[in-house]
Amino acid sequence: MGPHPAVAAIRLAVRRVLHDLLTEHHGTTAALPHAPSHELPPPPLVLVACSGGADSMALASALAFESPKLGVRAGGVTVDHGLQPGSDARAAEVVQRLRELGLDPVDSVAVTVGRAGGPEAAARDARYAALDTAAERHGATAVLLGHTRDDQAETVLLGLARGSGIRSLSGMAAVSGAGGRYRRPFLELDRQTARKACMVQSLPVWDDPHNADPAYTRSRLRHEGLPALEKALGKGVVEALARTARLSRDDADALDGWAGRAEATVRDATGVLECAKLYALPPAVRRRILRRAAIAAGAPAGSLFARHIEEVDRLITGWRGQGAINLPGKVVAQRQGGRLVIRQG
Amino acid sequence: MGPHPAVAAIRLAVRRVLHDLLTEHHGTTAALPHAPSHELPPPPLVLVACSGGADSMALASALAFESPKLGVRAGGVTVDHGLQPGSDARAAEVVQRLRELGLDPVDSVAVTVGRAGGPEAAARDARYAALDTAAERHGATAVLLGHTRDDQAETVLLGLARGSGIRSLSGMAAVSGAGGRYRRPFLELDRQTARKACMVQSLPVWDDPHNADPAYTRSRLRHEGLPALEKALGKGVVEALARTARLSRDDADALDGWAGRAEATVRDATGVLECAKLYALPPAVRRRILRRAAIAAGAPAGSLFARHIEEVDRLITGWRGQGAINLPGKVVAQRQGGRLVIRQG
Repeated sequence: MGPHPAVAAIRLAVRRVLHDLLTEHHGTTAALPHAPSHELPPPPLVLVACSGGADSMALASALAFESPKLGVRAGGVTVDHGLQPGSDARAAEVVQRLRELGLDPVDSVAVTVGRAGGPEAAARDARYAALDTAAERHGATAVLLGHTRDDQAETVLLGLARGSGIRSLSGMAAVSGAGGRYRRPFLELDRQTARKACMVQSLPVWDDPHNADPAYTRSRLRHEGLPALEKALGKGVVEALARTARLSRDDADALDGWAGRAEATVRDATGVLECAKLYALPPAVRRRILRRAAIAAGAPAGSLFARHIEEVDRLITGWRGQGAINLPGKVVAQRQGGRLVIRQG
Repeated sequence: MGPHPAVAAIRLAVRRVLHDLLTEHHGTTAALPHAPSHELPPPPLVLVACSGGADSMALASALAFESPKLGVRAGGVTVDHGLQPGSDARAAEVVQRLRELGLDPVDSVAVTVGRAGGPEAAARDARYAALDTAAERHGATAVLLGHTRDDQAETVLLGLARGSGIRSLSGMAAVSGAGGRYRRPFLELDRQTARKACMVQSLPVWDDPHNADPAYTRSRLRHEGLPALEKALGKGVVEALARTARLSRDDADALDGWAGRAEATVRDATGVLECAKLYALPPAVRRRILRRAAIAAGAPAGSLFARHIEEVDRLITGWRGQGAINLPGKVVAQRQGGRLVIRQG
């Protein structure tokens, strides 16, 4: 008798990612078929980032199961955000559970959460910085993250609320970070499956009270917004949102590539943008070039909204003698004859 | 003292569209500066499609106010869908109200709603067919539609629920139909403004009971889904969705254009798709070419989902000897050596 379907599903998801990692890891030596085997790189180390919640505990259990079969070393990291009393004891407990699963090394890293960008963004920044450090300290090839399809759907809706275009609809990538360090094996798996897999494996899980706290946008979305949307639109909404993320990411990548190539063709000999050449481009490509130019001139990407770029675009498409456009970061966009000058003022 | 801000807003929106129409209308004669004035085309006729609801009554009132100032003739059409008892009397009442606003000609057109695609799609198809016929009968330059920003936000969410990519997120176009016949002046105006404009102008409006009927997906979205999303994500959601529509439309247009140009470069001398050349394209462009090829081979566009195209794409990107892929419309996609053959089986 095979494992419970939920356990089979989480293991398959992890196996696929480990397989990808091994293919990449041995990529260089595969070109040297006659190299003696002692010149093969040491077995790669894969870490799981684990909060002790159902998603990342399921992930840890699947990594512990699959890694020995594939000759991969498996370890774990838990981040103590220090945001709740007793968070250190909780982190120690997660470390203990990861060790019981057979993971080694296992680390707990305490971080100090700042305030930049709001509480959720600040906690995320501190967490990834700690995971980066841990991965480097242990020489890990990859860090697995337990984000599920439900998390992805929430991320797409959060991006939708920004209304800043398809890049913000693309959610989280299956592979991200420096050198593709972060991997998200559960991005096509639903939260319910991860929870079920913990249950049938008798893994204790911890429910982060933040996840149910209506002070957090994501929590409101999870417990009210998304269920109401499912009620109106039908049960397939989460899957549709996750699919939208994948398609949007590919579309955004293709258009960014196009804009990158086109940018060189719309500048004059001195590097200044030429309005006539910009005008001839599709709006989607032109606006991406304008955005890149504004960022290159010093505008902070996070403060540069679609409406800013639309206003700069009107210097090209709706020219009626407008004055200079002020952009974030003291960047100014100005039409000078047939040229568009974007620079820090 | 000027008009109430809501009235000013609806008039401005209509004025902009009429201005666009006049620029297009006189476009041909502008190239003939010495033509005597009696050779100018007759003043264009613009029709408003009016259900008697707040949005389209506001639109009709603004058209009636602005058209004489711009030398445009203004008429109206109401469609009797015959779906409720007394719908004919209601249509007659709308005709009466449009005449009282000074519109001429005013028509009521009775249609028979079929069943294809569900009740909402069938009613829409019948309505546009009737509006097309009315526009042609009267020689109208354009038909104005009262869709608001709120309708647009709902349309984006309906597209999101399909999960079929950014084209379905682009909502309704400001200009659509054969020769750009349909114009939507209120696409950036909120429903509340249209309603307010009717109120302050003492225009009686009719609330279609369908709009509040939870049997309709759009109605559930309007009364439950979208308010819950606003509660979770904040008040800017409708605006963000409308902006997403605009940006997605431009992005989808640019990528469709790219795919159209690239398609010719990935076929061999006999017109068959070459896998190696397809592989070299960005996934977003490649999948669009595959979709176009499937439709050209006879697959009905409306039944061709993202998952179909993903499966065909794996014949290129994940070739492991798969068999033929069955697509809607009895279309079959099959890899034959280095070629991808898509044809009706």
